[in-house]
Amino acid sequence: MKPIITAFANSPDRGRGLARDMRVRWALEEVGQPYDVRLVTFKEMKEPAHLARSPFGQIPTYEEGDLTLFETGAIMLHIATTRAGLLPEEPNARERAIMWMFAALSTMEPPVIQYEVSAFFEKDKSWSSERLPLVIERVRDRLDQLSAFLGDADWLEGDFSAGDLMMIEVLIRLGSSNLLDDYPNLAAYVARAKARPAFKRAFEAQYQVFLAASKS
Amino acid sequence: MKPIITAFANSPDRGRGLARDMRVRWALEEVGQPYDVRLVTFKEMKEPAHLARSPFGQIPTYEEGDLTLFETGAIMLHIATTRAGLLPEEPNARERAIMWMFAALSTMEPPVIQYEVSAFFEKDKSWSSERLPLVIERVRDRLDQLSAFLGDADWLEGDFSAGDLMMIEVLIRLGSSNLLDDYPNLAAYVARAKARPAFKRAFEAQYQVFLAASKS
Repeated sequence: MKPIITAFANSPDRGRGLARDMRVRWALEEVGQPYDVRLVTFKEMKEPAHLARSPFGQIPTYEEGDLTLFETGAIMLHIATTRAGLLPEEPNARERAIMWMFAALSTMEPPVIQYEVSAFFEKDKSWSSERLPLVIERVRDRLDQLSAFLGDADWLEGDFSAGDLMMIEVLIRLGSSNLLDDYPNLAAYVARAKARPAFKRAFEAQYQVFLAASKS
Repeated sequence: MKPIITAFANSPDRGRGLARDMRVRWALEEVGQPYDVRLVTFKEMKEPAHLARSPFGQIPTYEEGDLTLFETGAIMLHIATTRAGLLPEEPNARERAIMWMFAALSTMEPPVIQYEVSAFFEKDKSWSSERLPLVIERVRDRLDQLSAFLGDADWLEGDFSAGDLMMIEVLIRLGSSNLLDDYPNLAAYVARAKARPAFKRAFEAQYQVFLAASKS
């Protein structure tokens, strides 16, 4: 039985792959697990049927037999711990890879989201131009630290893992800014990930949803 | 061998227990695991010895034999999966409890932190009074949804779990605001957690660090 994930019926980023279903699609492609997709409109996301899957009215969710999960991190951990390909076998290395998933979500993503909020959603607010530099500084602090840790390694800890996948998906959100330009090793890290066949298949799958919606 | 965690040598919240070592202390108390604490100053947090433990220069970290972890979520997951007391045994229930850890960190905590940033760190900025209502609205949206999910249950899913622990620690950060006053079930949820002996022992331990530092 194939797991079912949910995704936006109408991609808010016009198929650029920034919605969080991309992370789950990519993970499923990495482990070779076929899946089905249930598309939900913005209206449906706030209705009882979807709120029963996701109390915060978000996508993605994940249904597999009796198990229903929301939260991208939890879904990723489920996929990574039930299929081979996203975590090392050795117990300590495994915990370190999972640790980087948390680092991506808890330490790197919040300032990146604040950058998006400030640069886009609050763009027309009176405070935007004055506040944005402060927000960018917070992102740069984290990029400095991540860049220093990564150095010239290909991936954060040994082989590509769920930790890299999550971290790269956060960095990709900076794609429309020029913030990664000052960090050649991070830009190369992102490029390396985007070249993975599993990434390409996942990206194409979510892009086809956008194309189909824009034609209908 | 007792694990070693790191914590602030000088509590920035004057012992109110809002620093993230509190979460790890509480988890360790819940599972009955004694631990040692290495206190680090703000200066030491940016020095090589600590950056080797925590590339983002944060506390807490966790050292146990050959394993070193940073990120509160990863440390909590390690404690919860290697000791009994913080996760149910049944596999699906276990994944749901872990899911709530991610929900606390990825969905609830970011707007709460933005509230703190706006209400305290950016209090004197020109935009603060105009922007704060927008930030509060984002927090309230999440509290509405969490309150609806919790209903009149004691804990999020059956017994108290690492998911509750993490969620309650996020809600506690709203303690100095009046935001929880409109959500009696969430206020009761927090009070129920604070009454747990393990919470009290952890709180007291971090408070003693503040007292000792303020006397020295």
